[in-house]
Amino acid sequence: MLVRAARRVAVTARRATSTVGDNRVVRLQTEDPRMSKIVIHNGVVYTSGQTAGDAGDCVKAQTQATLDKVDALLKEAGTSKSHALSATIWLKDINRDFKGMNEVWNNWVDPTNKPVRATVEAAMARPVLLVEIQVTAALDKNPFEDLNY
Amino acid sequence: MLVRAARRVAVTARRATSTVGDNRVVRLQTEDPRMSKIVIHNGVVYTSGQTAGDAGDCVKAQTQATLDKVDALLKEAGTSKSHALSATIWLKDINRDFKGMNEVWNNWVDPTNKPVRATVEAAMARPVLLVEIQVTAALDKNPFEDLNY
Amino acid sequence: MLVRAARRVAVTARRATSTVGDNRVVRLQTEDPRMSKIVIHNGVVYTSGQTAGDAGDCVKAQTQATLDKVDALLKEAGTSKSHALSATIWLKDINRDFKGMNEVWNNWVDPTNKPVRATVEAAMARPVLLVEIQVTAALDKNPFEDLNY
Repeated sequence: MLVRAARRVAVTARRATSTVGDNRVVRLQTEDPRMSKIVIHNGVVYTSGQTAGDAGDCVKAQTQATLDKVDALLKEAGTSKSHALSATIWLKDINRDFKGMNEVWNNWVDPTNKPVRATVEAAMARPVLLVEIQVTAALDKNPFEDLNY
Repeated sequence: MLVRAARRVAVTARRATSTVGDNRVVRLQTEDPRMSKIVIHNGVVYTSGQTAGDAGDCVKAQTQATLDKVDALLKEAGTSKSHALSATIWLKDINRDFKGMNEVWNNWVDPTNKPVRATVEAAMARPVLLVEIQVTAALDKNPFEDLNY
Repeated sequence: MLVRAARRVAVTARRATSTVGDNRVVRLQTEDPRMSKIVIHNGVVYTSGQTAGDAGDCVKAQTQATLDKVDALLKEAGTSKSHALSATIWLKDINRDFKGMNEVWNNWVDPTNKPVRATVEAAMARPVLLVEIQVTAALDKNPFEDLNY
């Protein structure tokens, strides 16, 4: 029984090294000389701010295309919007586009697992960009899930 | 003695699942269709950007009312400003209001436990808003506090 | 063998309390009444937004001087840019200065360890400021590095 308990702790510690309790850093989508698009550390997935300038000059279309990119990044990192922790949203014209962005956002977000959020106005890297969204999420794994002392 | 050591590790691992070392996500104040106001993960409390448009058109009054909301969120999450990790502050008119906001901020912050901070200018969701503040904090618990090997 | 395994777990748990898996908060460079310049919690190093208004009115010079300050903060915290997790960059004039800032940034960043990034336009605390950079990084320690079950 003691042996089993010690083994469980050992297994947990070993598994924890790939999620929380691990100081190693994993970087994905690292082609851009300026940034990684995904960084994973200690159970948290960080993503770079996403934009969709090629989606047209309508904030709803840009928001949807941007959130599609966020979904793809979270999936590659091994998680999803249902594990989102926080979101920062920048709008080029917040008075004009706050409502339209929110319509798409509210439809995208998992209603039972909404992140915290801050939304402010800012110009972005190119004049065509109307919205930029940056999301952090928890990894979709609980390293302690099999612990049954 | 070995049994006691193994038990201590087990107890620590179990307790850690509610603070650091836990990949589960807790969400509070989830009524808003756009966001949770509080998200807790792996020992960190995330809060949504807070504003106080009904506090009048003076940055000092809005800052104080905003920080009161931050205090309330941190309390509900089980922590306080004395465990603040980082703060982001947006001002509608940073040249005019940086000094006034700082007077209220400096009086609010725990002088022995100040977070890191970044303050920039940005318009916010409604034209009446002069300041928005977003704070992250550590949970007020040390899951290893009883570890005395 | 069981004794050795239990000892390893104990040592790991104890060492973890200074990096990941630790809810204690360490604050450095706390002279400014508004903020700490460095906060360390659970294996993550948070830094305050850095600027370099005294570096002249060229975005390249200000970016380099700002990144020098970031390097110094990360070093004091016990880590480096090679462990950067995320960076937020604000530019006073993003259309004019995005390219110049990126030239200095791309030369600074560790090409095999790039953080996630978001860059938007914002006025900062003083009109002379052209760029502000805020970085978070992982501590340069793996508390599980000696675990060899």
